Amino acid sequence: MTSTAPASSAAPTAAAPASSAAPGAPVAARPAPAWNRQRPSGMPSHRYRSVVDRVEVPLAAASAAPRTWPDRHTTVAPLWVPVDLRDGNQALAEPMDPARKRALFELMVRIGYTEIEVGYPSASQTDFDFVRLLAESGERAVNGGGSTSTPDPAPIAPEHVTIVVFTAARRDLIERTVESIRGLRNEVVVHLYTATAPTWRDVVLGRDRAELKALILAAADDVLRAAGDLPNVRFEFSPEVFNLTEPGYVLEVCDAVTERWDARPERPVILNLPATVEIATPNVYADQIEWMHRNLARRDGVILSVHPHNDRGTGVACAELAVLAGAQRVEGCLFGNGERTGNVDLVTLALNLHAQGVDPMIDFSQIDEVRRVVEHANRIEVHPRHPYVGDLVHTAFSGTHQDAISKGLAEHRARAIASGVPSSQLDWRVPYLPIDPADLGRSYDAVIRVNSQSGKGGMAYLLADAYGIELPRRAQIDFARHVQRATDASGLEVDAAGLWSVFERAYLGVPGGGAGEAGPGAGRPGAVTAGADAGAGTGARAAAPGARVELTLLTTDSGSAGRIRVAVRVDGVEHAAELDGVGPVEAVTSVLGAAGIHVEVLSLHTTSLTAGSDSEALTLIEFRDGAADGGGDGVGGAASWAAGRDRSVLTASARAVTAAAERVLARR
Amino acid sequence: MTSTAPASSAAPTAAAPASSAAPGAPVAARPAPAWNRQRPSGMPSHRYRSVVDRVEVPLAAASAAPRTWPDRHTTVAPLWVPVDLRDGNQALAEPMDPARKRALFELMVRIGYTEIEVGYPSASQTDFDFVRLLAESGERAVNGGGSTSTPDPAPIAPEHVTIVVFTAARRDLIERTVESIRGLRNEVVVHLYTATAPTWRDVVLGRDRAELKALILAAADDVLRAAGDLPNVRFEFSPEVFNLTEPGYVLEVCDAVTERWDARPERPVILNLPATVEIATPNVYADQIEWMHRNLARRDGVILSVHPHNDRGTGVACAELAVLAGAQRVEGCLFGNGERTGNVDLVTLALNLHAQGVDPMIDFSQIDEVRRVVEHANRIEVHPRHPYVGDLVHTAFSGTHQDAISKGLAEHRARAIASGVPSSQLDWRVPYLPIDPADLGRSYDAVIRVNSQSGKGGMAYLLADAYGIELPRRAQIDFARHVQRATDASGLEVDAAGLWSVFERAYLGVPGGGAGEAGPGAGRPGAVTAGADAGAGTGARAAAPGARVELTLLTTDSGSAGRIRVAVRVDGVEHAAELDGVGPVEAVTSVLGAAGIHVEVLSLHTTSLTAGSDSEALTLIEFRDGAADGGGDGVGGAASWAAGRDRSVLTASARAVTAAAERVLARR
Repeated sequence: MTSTAPASSAAPTAAAPASSAAPGAPVAARPAPAWNRQRPSGMPSHRYRSVVDRVEVPLAAASAAPRTWPDRHTTVAPLWVPVDLRDGNQALAEPMDPARKRALFELMVRIGYTEIEVGYPSASQTDFDFVRLLAESGERAVNGGGSTSTPDPAPIAPEHVTIVVFTAARRDLIERTVESIRGLRNEVVVHLYTATAPTWRDVVLGRDRAELKALILAAADDVLRAAGDLPNVRFEFSPEVFNLTEPGYVLEVCDAVTERWDARPERPVILNLPATVEIATPNVYADQIEWMHRNLARRDGVILSVHPHNDRGTGVACAELAVLAGAQRVEGCLFGNGERTGNVDLVTLALNLHAQGVDPMIDFSQIDEVRRVVEHANRIEVHPRHPYVGDLVHTAFSGTHQDAISKGLAEHRARAIASGVPSSQLDWRVPYLPIDPADLGRSYDAVIRVNSQSGKGGMAYLLADAYGIELPRRAQIDFARHVQRATDASGLEVDAAGLWSVFERAYLGVPGGGAGEAGPGAGRPGAVTAGADAGAGTGARAAAPGARVELTLLTTDSGSAGRIRVAVRVDGVEHAAELDGVGPVEAVTSVLGAAGIHVEVLSLHTTSLTAGSDSEALTLIEFRDGAADGGGDGVGGAASWAAGRDRSVLTASARAVTAAAERVLARR
Repeated sequence: MTSTAPASSAAPTAAAPASSAAPGAPVAARPAPAWNRQRPSGMPSHRYRSVVDRVEVPLAAASAAPRTWPDRHTTVAPLWVPVDLRDGNQALAEPMDPARKRALFELMVRIGYTEIEVGYPSASQTDFDFVRLLAESGERAVNGGGSTSTPDPAPIAPEHVTIVVFTAARRDLIERTVESIRGLRNEVVVHLYTATAPTWRDVVLGRDRAELKALILAAADDVLRAAGDLPNVRFEFSPEVFNLTEPGYVLEVCDAVTERWDARPERPVILNLPATVEIATPNVYADQIEWMHRNLARRDGVILSVHPHNDRGTGVACAELAVLAGAQRVEGCLFGNGERTGNVDLVTLALNLHAQGVDPMIDFSQIDEVRRVVEHANRIEVHPRHPYVGDLVHTAFSGTHQDAISKGLAEHRARAIASGVPSSQLDWRVPYLPIDPADLGRSYDAVIRVNSQSGKGGMAYLLADAYGIELPRRAQIDFARHVQRATDASGLEVDAAGLWSVFERAYLGVPGGGAGEAGPGAGRPGAVTAGADAGAGTGARAAAPGARVELTLLTTDSGSAGRIRVAVRVDGVEHAAELDGVGPVEAVTSVLGAAGIHVEVLSLHTTSLTAGSDSEALTLIEFRDGAADGGGDGVGGAASWAAGRDRSVLTASARAVTAAAERVLARR
């Protein structure tokens, strides 16, 4: 196929009209322009084919009914359906345990999702049990004595939330699925899937088109037989790998299913059309969706749903263009977890609507809280450049950007005063920041580099090189603010010893005495722990002079599930406890809680603190004052950092918590 | 604005025709369908506006010249221009030092980039010096005695590579920029930028449209005056925030610039149109680019370039649709580094072309090597779900996917035999894997979960809980294979002690004796290190029985830059060295190298090994046999893991290297 330039221009471009791409047409060599000296890579690209050579793509400008989606825009959020507990979960090396599942489900409900796929009950006992938990959590305590006037306990899944359960097209699996939902008072969607694309039919399932259609319809009948009479149940069908299936065939199958299920506006059927593996630029998926949207039978009895993956890094675009093309419902995962490169990211999709003035219908005003729950559930961190939520996305390092942003913020404040509209409600026009970070409970960080001319002068480099400390990224950003304050005051450049001194004062609870005293001597970290005995069974020692919170005892039996004894002195009063099966961090926070200090630990990082061939453990914790949360101005509830050090990792962690408590007290 | 359903259907959708979106039109409440119970979120979305209310978007289906890009597809790679050393670098908390810059530049050249933006020489001395290094690296050694017959040293930037330098529109900065490129024998592009969007004009620059145009043209003249007579220099202009600038105005400015610079096919001018901050779905950017493509003056003397960012997570889609719309050149970063959410990812863009049968013109056949260099330069890790390169993207955990993939791989092998085409050259049709991981030097990993029913039974959980070991993700995947082999052999489920025994044999060089012997007693890791003295100055001890490589001496002076003495016994022969200013890992690899064992360390991770309140350091290294690289079948060059443990972090790291050496020897 030859790449032809558009008629309106003589300049060569890389795009050819799709119509010229006849399958099997020979590829003509095109002379590259002189300014492009790229050479063939040697990659075996001949093994792959363009989407137009793999599947018929139905819409075109020249057709009788040309596409309309590029002229539309979105003004109302579609129905969002998180599938983290099923599709996301099956892509984890370690599936979620029941506690993680429940925490994530409750988060989803809290922020506003009203339809949630909770599992694949016929494939996993954990999933089956979770659906049973939802069914039984709101039940009257029948064992307690029949129909009395005892109020029902609050159900985990409130009444307005629809529960989706996923099943393959096999009678026993369908029956097991329906068994899992018995007694659920919520609306339930039974979601049936079968792959329909040619490779799957030929290689995986071994059925031709007619056989596969018969199999799907038999399963649709099984679903009807098992659950058709349950008034709270609706149905969903997914032709998996929709985007590689012949359009005529997939339309025929979908129409047959909605007929079998008698799709009507009063009991609509969800047709979910997945881009199971991305294969083309996102406009092609939009064409495929618009064609279905316009040709489906019983259209007013169908909820058209999409389920993009992200193999080409264009999952978000696929979902957005599909909604323009007629999709009413989007399945995806929070921050894009899922098989391989993930499902489409529902958070980015929602906040993209917010950024263009459309209510996302989901509350992300505390996005870091959402992130923490999701990271805990998936055990996968969100990337620092992830849209809206990454550690670096509300941060500017370059002077030009910092200058423009600071002019924009000044203009914003001036306009708020002039108009009388509160700053947080005023139209946002600040350069380089697509939305106000405050909408998400975040702040904008103008991070000044310690030395912008050389990476080897950089803060993290100096600390790692001289002391072996690896700071997590959020701690780096927080630490930069402390360093900035220190250097603004002194006007000096800081070296490694100076940074260490700032670090000690900021996080280790070392009082801000003379810098010479706080700085480490002879390349070794300061003498604060000299004489501490790191042997098993005793890790407590005197705190820094002037400290109000002191760890006075920490002993553990061998083994992690053993008994732990801990004592903390707060303003001279000793609080102690013996606990079973908890770690030192939980033990110390629990004792502190009893003493009225609520340290909520958000994350914990252990690193080493090296000098010569010797080393100590350094534990950093991100925490907030649990008591300040919700009450007052909210500032007390913001995240801070504290650290502890010791030869024993356990004692270092316990000390980090007492250092945090020290800061909580200091703020009161 | 009301969301109107398309004429062809009665089903409500979330998309409204763009034409109905008159700025300021009131928003009519639409009754939500019964199946959608989402409620308003409380987010202040009213602070933001749709793109159509912010800037005129020129193309529409109903216009005299409707868009053509949705009917095109890409058949030839555009010119890729990595801007990591400038745009990416300015977004790092710690900018690259000269060594990192050079390593990244050399990588880019090696894999096939032919035009590279190397810096902002007037804003950074490091950048200025780097351009000088490029200019001088290929120079005849004039100090050595004038024009002799000595061959020139090989330049860092080969002749076919075009060097781009970036400058703001101010005379002194332009002159300083041109000063930096004097003597460069490569083709050079001087890249001038100025923001043109209304907010930037009003708030940041304080100039109206006419004043800003005059400023840009004056700068264009300055560029001509400073560099117009240099025959190897071409010019580039970027109207920053192009996507928010009035189309008529930006066209007028661009045409004035290309006239001033006399853009002709023999000396084309690059017009680079950035989506500096993403503001709309990617089809809007494509419309903007196509309109420029069709309306620019001197079109055959213009190279149309795009520069998307990723604020909405649609940077890749923006670039792809813009190329369909007429763009010939794409600026971006490897794996998407850059301000905030990053620049568009050039690796994903290239491999998306590969996956549709188009030569990307860049060689990613060793993608992990590319990733390591980029991670080192940026000090930011690539996310495990990043397309094509993430640790998890060629991995399947779910049984259904593993089954389909294994059927697909069997079909692939059978077809290779039947057709006589080598497996690595044969058309790829395997389900769920968009391309053959082998194209990238990767493998497909079917990871069996140790216990799929409960996260608390998971491998990583058990190791972390019982021993405090946090395995990095790639090590988890590698370890899973070892566990699988062990459980396939035994047919048993493994508990924490069993996992630890597999771990010891796999990584710590403990010989595969009886499982009872290798398992830890009383919750403590095995007795291998009992009696080892972790004091400063001595960390060596006897290796495991049967070991061929043994660390016999490791002493360091205090301070990180001090002298290190190291000795290693290999098959009974002692090799020793004293080195200055290196760490233990470099010291041991250097001594081993002298002994003919080439351990190339790819990554290093330190974690703790806890039992009770006591702890040791555990160092894990990812390595490969440097000697096997390039020679032979390539298998010896694959990455493996090894570990070392000790109370001292330094000794643990040194031991990890000797454990790696043991494995290299064992493979020979």
